[in-house]
Amino acid sequence: MTSIQMIEAARDRLAGRVRRTPLLSSPFLDEIAGRRIFVKPECLQHTGSFKFRGAWSAISALSPEVREKGVIAFSSGNHAQGVALAAKLHNIPSVIVMPSDAPRIKIANTKAFGAEVVLYDRATEDRDAIGAKLSHERNLTLIRPFDEPLVIAGQGTTGLEIAEQAGEEGIGTADVLVPTGGGGLASGVALALEAKAPALRVRTCEPLGFDDFARSLEAGTIQRNASQTGSICDAIVTPQPGSLTFPILSRLAGPGIAVSDDEALQAVVLAFSRLKIAVEPGGAVALAAALFHGETLSDTVIVIASGGNIDNDVFDAAFKRFG
Amino acid sequence: MTSIQMIEAARDRLAGRVRRTPLLSSPFLDEIAGRRIFVKPECLQHTGSFKFRGAWSAISALSPEVREKGVIAFSSGNHAQGVALAAKLHNIPSVIVMPSDAPRIKIANTKAFGAEVVLYDRATEDRDAIGAKLSHERNLTLIRPFDEPLVIAGQGTTGLEIAEQAGEEGIGTADVLVPTGGGGLASGVALALEAKAPALRVRTCEPLGFDDFARSLEAGTIQRNASQTGSICDAIVTPQPGSLTFPILSRLAGPGIAVSDDEALQAVVLAFSRLKIAVEPGGAVALAAALFHGETLSDTVIVIASGGNIDNDVFDAAFKRFG
Repeated sequence: MTSIQMIEAARDRLAGRVRRTPLLSSPFLDEIAGRRIFVKPECLQHTGSFKFRGAWSAISALSPEVREKGVIAFSSGNHAQGVALAAKLHNIPSVIVMPSDAPRIKIANTKAFGAEVVLYDRATEDRDAIGAKLSHERNLTLIRPFDEPLVIAGQGTTGLEIAEQAGEEGIGTADVLVPTGGGGLASGVALALEAKAPALRVRTCEPLGFDDFARSLEAGTIQRNASQTGSICDAIVTPQPGSLTFPILSRLAGPGIAVSDDEALQAVVLAFSRLKIAVEPGGAVALAAALFHGETLSDTVIVIASGGNIDNDVFDAAFKRFG
Repeated sequence: MTSIQMIEAARDRLAGRVRRTPLLSSPFLDEIAGRRIFVKPECLQHTGSFKFRGAWSAISALSPEVREKGVIAFSSGNHAQGVALAAKLHNIPSVIVMPSDAPRIKIANTKAFGAEVVLYDRATEDRDAIGAKLSHERNLTLIRPFDEPLVIAGQGTTGLEIAEQAGEEGIGTADVLVPTGGGGLASGVALALEAKAPALRVRTCEPLGFDDFARSLEAGTIQRNASQTGSICDAIVTPQPGSLTFPILSRLAGPGIAVSDDEALQAVVLAFSRLKIAVEPGGAVALAAALFHGETLSDTVIVIASGGNIDNDVFDAAFKRFG
């Protein structure tokens, strides 16, 4: 179970390794939303997403003898890059098992960070079997993307920064909108805020049709997504909430919010023109929720822009439609 | 004359008003350049450029009786927006005289920040006469874009942050590459570094054909640009170095660097894909210099990305060619 002490310990291990991303804002976005919006751009984090925090947290906590054999991860991209770079900086090997239809920029970057990338076909191959064989043969440690206390602790360091920055900005009560796949970032942030800024409340944000967390939080039990394909928000589509993350968010988060693909793409374009940041669609769902689904939100909202690894053609298409 | 004391006083006036922008980096950029590159993204500053610093510095230093009558500025865009927002936040009127061919996003934003925008035709109208008439009639205070000690002091706060951040990153000796128009940012940064981090040396960066600072520094006397039109780097094209900024940079800066328009556009695209930031062409010339003109540079360079107010069609064209 992840505790605030584990999050603070992760912060210490991450010190000097992770970027403290700023809080951005724009009067133009406030005007669209009818409320104050602050954006925490984790797209500016190393590897272009918050995932580097959790990966560093988990790898840095391994014993040297275990760590030196290497790590393995399954990921369509952002966790892959986070693990690959954190492994490289620890001078250990990493193997990343990625679906062959992952965004090209994510596959290319993961390789460039020094990982051995093993591609598989989502339709015909069994990812877990591939991973189990590799990790058994080479004694690799599996770094889970979200259902892992040390990863949740690492992502929670984002929440520690938000608590501090909200104080600096004089923000009292606020909803904190978090793009949510398996729930690692949202649950880590929620735990940090519970301890450090209890007037800030996490809200999960997901693509319409892939809103397993919103439905699970409403039902009080874990609900699955009907499909895992068909969203442009590749970074945050997962089968169902994590078994560790769901209880945390069930206790600490407000109702979930779902946004359409078009709303996410509009948020991508507005983040570029108004905040001067590159955000991928899955990383922009929280901003989209703040801009277009304000009905149930507080007057001030803090939004995490969780990743920026967008393929050129996706950005270009968004820009053409909404730029 | 701007002193380090004036820069530190400006920092105090700017505290809580200006963003402390982070230092970004990417192993992909380091590989292209063959050296370590750190990027200070002032495109993430309020109004999308460093100009807000100088505008706030100058306006906040006016006596209340003078300030309340309002301010006036001449600018093609980034200084315009900085003055407009700083005036708005001081609850005073502002008049901005802009060329009618300034980037649309800059004209629109300046108006949205509450300024009265007066457009003039560069070819047929006399900007100074328009401004003199307006400021005389309404007792407006002129906020000069660069040849003004309080503005230089405000831009110099960027240098104070660079000195601190270089220390945090363990950077010893480095060239600090600065996009340079009139020289306000470069001279403010140079003065701050002289006092706080003398192993960091400013290098001015300009578009080829508009490299009045590079030629002036080489000649030891102020040289003019042959033309003021024809560069995509609208933000940093000025007739000649400032009479206050030139002596400062003549004493403190290394040789200037000039980059081609295509190099600037490539830097725009790489800043987007590798750093996840939107940078306008004029704001990207220092990054372009680091990437493509490394011959005379130190092994570690710090680059200022000075602004991000790029029109959609310019970005789209750059993206198509180099994305």
